[in-house]
Amino acid sequence: MAMTQMNLDMTLADEIIHRALREDMPMGDLTTDSTIPEQQEGSARIVAKEDGVVAGLPVFMRTFTLLDPRASFNLLVEEGDFVRKGTVLMTFGGNARALLKGERTALNLLQRMSGIATMTHLFVEALSGTETKIVDTRKTAPGLRYLDKYAVRAGGGTNHRYCLSDGVLIKDNHIKACGSITEAVKKARAVAPHTIRIEVEAESMEMVKEALEAGADIIMLDNMTNQQMADAVAFVAGRALTEASGNVTIERAAAIGGTGVNLVSSGALTHSVKAMDISMRFD
Amino acid sequence: MAMTQMNLDMTLADEIIHRALREDMPMGDLTTDSTIPEQQEGSARIVAKEDGVVAGLPVFMRTFTLLDPRASFNLLVEEGDFVRKGTVLMTFGGNARALLKGERTALNLLQRMSGIATMTHLFVEALSGTETKIVDTRKTAPGLRYLDKYAVRAGGGTNHRYCLSDGVLIKDNHIKACGSITEAVKKARAVAPHTIRIEVEAESMEMVKEALEAGADIIMLDNMTNQQMADAVAFVAGRALTEASGNVTIERAAAIGGTGVNLVSSGALTHSVKAMDISMRFD
Amino acid sequence: MAMTQMNLDMTLADEIIHRALREDMPMGDLTTDSTIPEQQEGSARIVAKEDGVVAGLPVFMRTFTLLDPRASFNLLVEEGDFVRKGTVLMTFGGNARALLKGERTALNLLQRMSGIATMTHLFVEALSGTETKIVDTRKTAPGLRYLDKYAVRAGGGTNHRYCLSDGVLIKDNHIKACGSITEAVKKARAVAPHTIRIEVEAESMEMVKEALEAGADIIMLDNMTNQQMADAVAFVAGRALTEASGNVTIERAAAIGGTGVNLVSSGALTHSVKAMDISMRFD
Amino acid sequence: MAMTQMNLDMTLADEIIHRALREDMPMGDLTTDSTIPEQQEGSARIVAKEDGVVAGLPVFMRTFTLLDPRASFNLLVEEGDFVRKGTVLMTFGGNARALLKGERTALNLLQRMSGIATMTHLFVEALSGTETKIVDTRKTAPGLRYLDKYAVRAGGGTNHRYCLSDGVLIKDNHIKACGSITEAVKKARAVAPHTIRIEVEAESMEMVKEALEAGADIIMLDNMTNQQMADAVAFVAGRALTEASGNVTIERAAAIGGTGVNLVSSGALTHSVKAMDISMRFD
Amino acid sequence: MAMTQMNLDMTLADEIIHRALREDMPMGDLTTDSTIPEQQEGSARIVAKEDGVVAGLPVFMRTFTLLDPRASFNLLVEEGDFVRKGTVLMTFGGNARALLKGERTALNLLQRMSGIATMTHLFVEALSGTETKIVDTRKTAPGLRYLDKYAVRAGGGTNHRYCLSDGVLIKDNHIKACGSITEAVKKARAVAPHTIRIEVEAESMEMVKEALEAGADIIMLDNMTNQQMADAVAFVAGRALTEASGNVTIERAAAIGGTGVNLVSSGALTHSVKAMDISMRFD
Amino acid sequence: MAMTQMNLDMTLADEIIHRALREDMPMGDLTTDSTIPEQQEGSARIVAKEDGVVAGLPVFMRTFTLLDPRASFNLLVEEGDFVRKGTVLMTFGGNARALLKGERTALNLLQRMSGIATMTHLFVEALSGTETKIVDTRKTAPGLRYLDKYAVRAGGGTNHRYCLSDGVLIKDNHIKACGSITEAVKKARAVAPHTIRIEVEAESMEMVKEALEAGADIIMLDNMTNQQMADAVAFVAGRALTEASGNVTIERAAAIGGTGVNLVSSGALTHSVKAMDISMRFD
Repeated sequence: MAMTQMNLDMTLADEIIHRALREDMPMGDLTTDSTIPEQQEGSARIVAKEDGVVAGLPVFMRTFTLLDPRASFNLLVEEGDFVRKGTVLMTFGGNARALLKGERTALNLLQRMSGIATMTHLFVEALSGTETKIVDTRKTAPGLRYLDKYAVRAGGGTNHRYCLSDGVLIKDNHIKACGSITEAVKKARAVAPHTIRIEVEAESMEMVKEALEAGADIIMLDNMTNQQMADAVAFVAGRALTEASGNVTIERAAAIGGTGVNLVSSGALTHSVKAMDISMRFD
Repeated sequence: MAMTQMNLDMTLADEIIHRALREDMPMGDLTTDSTIPEQQEGSARIVAKEDGVVAGLPVFMRTFTLLDPRASFNLLVEEGDFVRKGTVLMTFGGNARALLKGERTALNLLQRMSGIATMTHLFVEALSGTETKIVDTRKTAPGLRYLDKYAVRAGGGTNHRYCLSDGVLIKDNHIKACGSITEAVKKARAVAPHTIRIEVEAESMEMVKEALEAGADIIMLDNMTNQQMADAVAFVAGRALTEASGNVTIERAAAIGGTGVNLVSSGALTHSVKAMDISMRFD
Repeated sequence: MAMTQMNLDMTLADEIIHRALREDMPMGDLTTDSTIPEQQEGSARIVAKEDGVVAGLPVFMRTFTLLDPRASFNLLVEEGDFVRKGTVLMTFGGNARALLKGERTALNLLQRMSGIATMTHLFVEALSGTETKIVDTRKTAPGLRYLDKYAVRAGGGTNHRYCLSDGVLIKDNHIKACGSITEAVKKARAVAPHTIRIEVEAESMEMVKEALEAGADIIMLDNMTNQQMADAVAFVAGRALTEASGNVTIERAAAIGGTGVNLVSSGALTHSVKAMDISMRFD
Repeated sequence: MAMTQMNLDMTLADEIIHRALREDMPMGDLTTDSTIPEQQEGSARIVAKEDGVVAGLPVFMRTFTLLDPRASFNLLVEEGDFVRKGTVLMTFGGNARALLKGERTALNLLQRMSGIATMTHLFVEALSGTETKIVDTRKTAPGLRYLDKYAVRAGGGTNHRYCLSDGVLIKDNHIKACGSITEAVKKARAVAPHTIRIEVEAESMEMVKEALEAGADIIMLDNMTNQQMADAVAFVAGRALTEASGNVTIERAAAIGGTGVNLVSSGALTHSVKAMDISMRFD
Repeated sequence: MAMTQMNLDMTLADEIIHRALREDMPMGDLTTDSTIPEQQEGSARIVAKEDGVVAGLPVFMRTFTLLDPRASFNLLVEEGDFVRKGTVLMTFGGNARALLKGERTALNLLQRMSGIATMTHLFVEALSGTETKIVDTRKTAPGLRYLDKYAVRAGGGTNHRYCLSDGVLIKDNHIKACGSITEAVKKARAVAPHTIRIEVEAESMEMVKEALEAGADIIMLDNMTNQQMADAVAFVAGRALTEASGNVTIERAAAIGGTGVNLVSSGALTHSVKAMDISMRFD
Repeated sequence: MAMTQMNLDMTLADEIIHRALREDMPMGDLTTDSTIPEQQEGSARIVAKEDGVVAGLPVFMRTFTLLDPRASFNLLVEEGDFVRKGTVLMTFGGNARALLKGERTALNLLQRMSGIATMTHLFVEALSGTETKIVDTRKTAPGLRYLDKYAVRAGGGTNHRYCLSDGVLIKDNHIKACGSITEAVKKARAVAPHTIRIEVEAESMEMVKEALEAGADIIMLDNMTNQQMADAVAFVAGRALTEASGNVTIERAAAIGGTGVNLVSSGALTHSVKAMDISMRFD
């Protein structure tokens, strides 16, 4: 999958990379600065040490470019590719100090992002043959949401709202405060830009019905059984988007897809990431 | 374990919390601001939905205090406590909007930190009966290192160097550039503050010997078998600290501890965190 | 209209106020610091010097509170009220230096915001009796978008998308690059969160039809005559939202509303603001 | 008029442009990133849609250069030129995504700045034949003062003090607190750098006399009739600079100039800007 | 001398203090956090260990208040006081950790500022009996200019321009580029706000004459002998301010004052500060 | 001495330089921008006006490069060289405005840093013939610690801990709070990374003994006589590093070195800097 389609805005990535480098080197690298000659050049390769979907290559490269603008890279796979253990992802070279200083930060980012993309890919595969899409949540690592959500796209998933400011998701407490779903939807609609869809969290068919009548654009089917979801999807019948949420696992994904629900969201995609094992080997 | 002993500097935590809140609410919370009356009060409880070590309670509370300075909390467990599924960790109250706006950010932090503390705790238990300590690495989520490393302490572990600026760890490439371990240690010593210990990564007994002779304060035993480590520890005989690194798992921990090594470091503590399942329930 | 309903997030306002104060006082106020005793108290009143809708009172007050946390205010009108020339909007008091230092910054904000609200109010009145709503655009003063858009709400208008990141508006160039409206909508849908509606700019009935078939949620009727708009609205028949754009003036507003279009957007609301004449009089 | 003489420091402009771009694209441009190929090139022209003085061309160009460092521009007019409706101001080209992403921000800045320059130019023309100069005030859009004041210079005006830190302007309240103009001037002089002139606001001939005796370098003639101003100017007789302030309109400008006053200041130059109508047309 | 008259804007001081604390504690205080109980209270006194003028007391106190908002202080001297060795400047108390963490930062600031004030005071005394004032330069410690210049005022001196943006000082190179002093003054006058005086650096009587004719408001007598300065002052005869610069020492100060020059500027006041010896003693 | 060995991380220097330039030019350079043509080129030389050790050349050059990326430099001495009065340190050229705007900031940094290096060099010479090293303290100019400590290295000294976060120094108050040195060391050891040495401040032989037994890695001999230090060093006998502190002067340095102490620390290196006299002469 070409990077273009995944929309990685490097100015946002840069902010995260800068912060990470500063966190790791508030006052330089004591070891490298004292042992490696300033002008020494070096080269290295990146190798997958397990199977997975690679995400974050532009971020990885950018980390080194920020430390050495003349660093050069030879990419051997594409962003979003599924690679086998042992695959060399890229070879690259540049100032040896820069390579050593950036190694940990670049790998921390690449491994996390590839871990997210790999998990997303597993969901995409589990849902293959259905129309259901896997989407993420706001359960991301604080400060890394932009990259976490990008990695979900790189793995073949799509994104839910980015944050509290660009989407409306009416839950229990909002409904309680307004007295009814109808009133809550009305109040949100009055203030939210018309460019934003309104989603309502429903825990029962009753609530699904009320949400639909209230004009919800999206209905979240929260913690329902597969049967309940199938019933709800049938009832909604395309008049709103439906989203499955709660107790979503790879194992259950196919069955959820079978209910015809439009979207299934999983917090685990980003809150419990298993870093993909990728190593950097100096030549 | 009392929070005091874990040294949580809130000004550093604040920076992370502020960034997370801003990330989640660059322009307010469309849903909450339109459906919840501005002055409404609310209360909630935090419940562990699985067993684990709780870490991040001060960070959790601070998130809400930043949104509502008058929020009040009733802590029912202590930071660092091992709790059972179902335990209510705290009850708290404050402005209802603040509670809804802060929920996701506060939970994202608490769940990650508790996940780290819980995993650390498993290592501490596996190493019980030995003198070996579990330490972390620099494989943390970019931007969250301070909290990640704090969570390791909360789980009973200790910290390795914070970053490249406050420790010296001489690896392959540094040695190669200097010609020998001896020369690398000498060069690092000439520049590093005298308050900092010098660590050398050794992959063989040969290297352990040279590092010791070169005056290394700490010797990392990298990717060695248990037997190799035991031999190295015996050879070093307290003349330097020894640290086991590479292929460290909970399963192997006891055996590693049995070698008498002083420290064992694990990247997985922070690079592959499984968020602890903790929920916030509104009353 | 109560402030609550207008959703003013003060942390965002604070950032703008801080920047403004810093811009006006990079090194203190030479005049005030040298002539006014440090502990002197003062009081003042705010008076409308022309008719208009008041917006920005919380921002006005906050400016002084940042300079003197003990400043106190007696509000005599509500945010969003239409007031007559001569009306005293509030009386307030605090440290005299703070009052003098904050005066210009506070008035600059209040006058601009009230100017926007007043102009919006004129559109709301012109559209009364129709179902059409007045919405703003991204033609705001750089750095002030949050307050500019809030002022539109205070004046009775609603907001279009906040920025390029939280809405999709497909224009000429996007269509050209994709080959067709259908393809452009498809590509945007594949990447945009499902929580976001897709808007297409149409300059002819032909384009309106294609946009509708492509699944656009909102169709912008760009630079059309009233008759063309009426035809388009009739054709769309509620299957998408319609938005009138281009050559929108107060004078023409009623006629546009008469076409049944859902929304009418005006850049002039925020790009050519006439500051409302409001003065601060010290007692 | 050559840009050089107007002293535009681009590092200050950059800060404003960066903020504006970030405000408009906190997470990229959903539409453009999904519909326009990453490497596509584009070109466009800028056209004046009404008569006016152009200001902000360097800022306009810089916006695109920040998004695409290889963007190239062909300027057809000079900064500060008075142009007729229909004039093509420049043609330029670069990455198509960059052109689309920067369009709104670049135009928002150019239109505001040209609006300010145009209004200033009207005052300059109205004052032609007199020695009186038009100057601005601190009634600028918060956060945009540097560009607002630059635009005044581009329109042929000159600047009053930039802020409270680099000028002394003694008003009513300062005088009251000190007991007399004489005392206020003395106190300000004791603290202000000797490189800064001291201005006193006078509302009567009485005050003009006292200010002059107190050693004021500049006397503001506040809300005076033309006759009062003429009398004051005659009295001052070059011993201080005189500045007309209050109720300053284009219509009244010639008459004010006729009083011989040195400077006339107008808040409307920057607080009630009518954006100049300028459009960007893609080829 | 009361602090009021010295105009210390704490928001500017705060920025410097915050930066200093962050510099000294990027990740907390390892020693204090591990050895001092979190709730322990402490108290201390500040003692002058040599004679000097005290400056920076508000900055000193603020450092601790930022670390412990409940810290309380008992000031025993006033800002700007000349104190004898052994004088207790203040007693104060607060959280023991805060006292230990802030000690170094607070003292670094207080000692530098008092060192500057003390040196300034020596010049003031040397110039007593003359009308000449001692002023500072832009030769300050980068990042500390605001406090450095405040300390000069606390010591009885006055300030030259704050920076390149709020004053005009025409030197050799500016004159050369313009062809003549007359032309340089004219060009600067055309662009500088009318609230700012224009200073010209003159190295000979020739240049003094030309500067005066060109309308300079201030003439810097650069590296002149006392006799040359006396001649220049006599020639200028009050038509402009005169400022002595170059080779200014305490020893020579009285003689310079004797020439009748209005101001004498010394870079050494701030570029070669001898920290005043002040200690903090815990009770 | 080659710059490489001194480890100057330019990203940290950049932050300080940027801040300094912004401090000196918040709104451009009124004089230079109005009198020097925008495209004019210039050249200059840097000359030592007294003997000393030069430090800060990269920082000096960087200041101009930030203002004019095409500026070019011809270095005639090396960083850390001892130079005689009259030596030309470098010649360089670039945009004339950039040269004039950067002059003061660049010199302020170079002169301070060279002043520190020169003083450090005097200590190094005084200690020659002994094994004792001169080290700095945390008594640096707030905000300039990184450059202050770099300058110490450039002068031949070595650095103590950078800040409170990367070293442990147990003093009186920490000991008191813990009840004993032993307990304090134990508590610090439990929390500090194992990569950090623990230092204890001792004022008597009694304390030296306890510190040694407690396992201190470094013992500070505080305010001891030469004889007391010699006794302490003899007692410690290499089991810990020893550091002399208090009343350290150039005059006393040789005698202190004679005691065999490992390190001697001096606050005066950085708290009472005499700027080295260096001038910039335009060609």
